[in-house]
Amino acid sequence: MHNASKILGMSAKSKPRKNQEPARRSDCAVACTLDLIGDRWTLLVVRDLLGGKRHFDEFLRSPERIATNVLSARLRTLQEFGFIEKEPDPSDQRRYAYGFTEKGRRLCELLGHIAAWGHKYLPATKIMKGIRLPPA
Amino acid sequence: MHNASKILGMSAKSKPRKNQEPARRSDCAVACTLDLIGDRWTLLVVRDLLGGKRHFDEFLRSPERIATNVLSARLRTLQEFGFIEKEPDPSDQRRYAYGFTEKGRRLCELLGHIAAWGHKYLPATKIMKGIRLPPA
Repeated sequence: MHNASKILGMSAKSKPRKNQEPARRSDCAVACTLDLIGDRWTLLVVRDLLGGKRHFDEFLRSPERIATNVLSARLRTLQEFGFIEKEPDPSDQRRYAYGFTEKGRRLCELLGHIAAWGHKYLPATKIMKGIRLPPA
Repeated sequence: MHNASKILGMSAKSKPRKNQEPARRSDCAVACTLDLIGDRWTLLVVRDLLGGKRHFDEFLRSPERIATNVLSARLRTLQEFGFIEKEPDPSDQRRYAYGFTEKGRRLCELLGHIAAWGHKYLPATKIMKGIRLPPA
């Protein structure tokens, strides 16, 4: 399981195109944000990175049980948008480690607002490790 | 076009089940929020309601060009979650008008945060009519 990301065709040979912005549906700030993160999984990968996860198999073990193909696609898109980057893990060169880019850290701010909203209005929900809530 | 919603099978005969919560993937506040609004279209319908739109055909005319089947599905889900309600339009009984429930107004708060994030970080984006930004 150490290099699941290689098995899944994410080797250096098929590098994602960097900083590729999605086609805009309009110039609405909400629509453009949803073009980036408007799905059920992308922000959960961001949450897990914030919580300290770095490796493909760690994301797979999160409680929502993301499917490998969905995880693979979301990691790739986050790379293409320039939010995360993938490097060989310094402690095990056969393995990749994911991390935020400078631009990617902006997503943490958005995540904080979404977590705060959920925690306020949806009963019996928790703020997961690493998420910083906005000042009240 | 006046009763597009009826044509699309949204008559009173097939009422959405009210306040039906989606199955939770975990107790994470982010995951639970995404179970409700984690797609590219739901919050755009919320934005349009906030901007004063009330009728099916008005939502269809928004710049993102939502497809009728997607709009129909999103309105239905928002009703099922108890965020919006549909009533015969007082000014034209052949037509339905959509509006927020008390619970639905909470989504406006979330929308404000997402709009603010997009406007801050995504170049050349606009805050659309009706959206209230959170205090800076």
